[in-house]
Amino acid sequence: MRNIKIIMEYDGTDFYGWQIQPEKRTVQGLLESAVETFLNKKTKVTGAGRTDTGVHALNQVANFHMKGNYDEETIKNAINANLPCDISIKNVEEVDSSFNSRFDAISRIYIYRVSKIYSVFNNAYSWHYGYTLDIYSMNKGCRLLLGKNDMTSFTVVKSKKENMYMDIKKCHFMENEDEIVFEIEADRFLHKSVRTIVGTLTLLGKSKLDVSEIKNILLSKDRGKAGSTAPPNGLFLKEVKY
Amino acid sequence: MRNIKIIMEYDGTDFYGWQIQPEKRTVQGLLESAVETFLNKKTKVTGAGRTDTGVHALNQVANFHMKGNYDEETIKNAINANLPCDISIKNVEEVDSSFNSRFDAISRIYIYRVSKIYSVFNNAYSWHYGYTLDIYSMNKGCRLLLGKNDMTSFTVVKSKKENMYMDIKKCHFMENEDEIVFEIEADRFLHKSVRTIVGTLTLLGKSKLDVSEIKNILLSKDRGKAGSTAPPNGLFLKEVKY
Repeated sequence: MRNIKIIMEYDGTDFYGWQIQPEKRTVQGLLESAVETFLNKKTKVTGAGRTDTGVHALNQVANFHMKGNYDEETIKNAINANLPCDISIKNVEEVDSSFNSRFDAISRIYIYRVSKIYSVFNNAYSWHYGYTLDIYSMNKGCRLLLGKNDMTSFTVVKSKKENMYMDIKKCHFMENEDEIVFEIEADRFLHKSVRTIVGTLTLLGKSKLDVSEIKNILLSKDRGKAGSTAPPNGLFLKEVKY
Repeated sequence: MRNIKIIMEYDGTDFYGWQIQPEKRTVQGLLESAVETFLNKKTKVTGAGRTDTGVHALNQVANFHMKGNYDEETIKNAINANLPCDISIKNVEEVDSSFNSRFDAISRIYIYRVSKIYSVFNNAYSWHYGYTLDIYSMNKGCRLLLGKNDMTSFTVVKSKKENMYMDIKKCHFMENEDEIVFEIEADRFLHKSVRTIVGTLTLLGKSKLDVSEIKNILLSKDRGKAGSTAPPNGLFLKEVKY
């Protein structure tokens, strides 16, 4: 069997996230049925990042196995022809049979857009934030999250057996005239962790929380200590590194 | 009666254009019902530019008459509260009672976005064009359209009694890495004229038409001589001047 790696973008607005679910419009669900239509064979597609409802992807990576001699360009066009206009495969590459888009990823990069100006054209693609934010304090908070930490305080409380560690390699805010963009790179992400980090760091930006508190929140391992979860529409899976 | 001027933006994707029509989702229709809910009185709203189905507005101008002592900020917030998320009033200003947003406009500016790169995030906001375009030739063609001309060749054929003149004050293409943006300013626009001009000028950009032909198309007063109509999703009403 050939192993096909795909890179795709999608507008998450009208999806119940990446992961296939019965009766729900999901990216994985529509992608698997597009591949099935193309190959005339039920095919499992593995994805690198399980994005939530309303979360977008600029370069999600996935892979699946297939037979047949189609070249990469043909595979790309054939699957795209079976996809709706809010998912698009940007690249198809045949890779080594051992490649697994999920387990071989060494890091994922997400960005989160916070818009300063309300616009109907940004509604679905950024979080409109009504307060002035002090980026300098927010970036001080970012530095306290770097490295390998138990991120229980920044995720949805689940079973205690789960691995709660994330190794954050990069994490910072950049500002331009219209928006603030948060970028974070980590080996793995916990459920809603980027949105909880953004929701918490914005508290620093409007002086509702002192920078030193970030370390205490982290050490507390208590989700109740962190800020609220920022809305999904500002979040984009930007890149997956192997 | 007070005369209220509003400036608004809307995402035209899910509208049957500006103009109110029975049973259709139109910008004017929803705006009039939002004003009616606010004032508890049926109110006609006049708009400066009648955008078509799928066409967007960055700064559409409209006006309506009302009684009551609400200040401008309150009027803005009250109407916005009754509008769906794809229309937003950006500014409200009380103006002289004689002001008419449609008839007092001295010019309108439209932009048309042509994207070089396909993206699900641009689908609704630009025309993805699969060929390389020579901006230099297209801008030569633009210069031949400047000034006051009978634009019959660049509009939808209707009654012969209509005023077919447009006085084009500015008209040019700008290019950046990802897209080409056409900007045009004229005293008035005929139905689908921007889209027909763009559809025709792109023929110059891919050498399917010689620049000198633009003058012949103009003089022919024959819609059949011009190029096809570019799709509506790339078109934005950018500004109305008074």
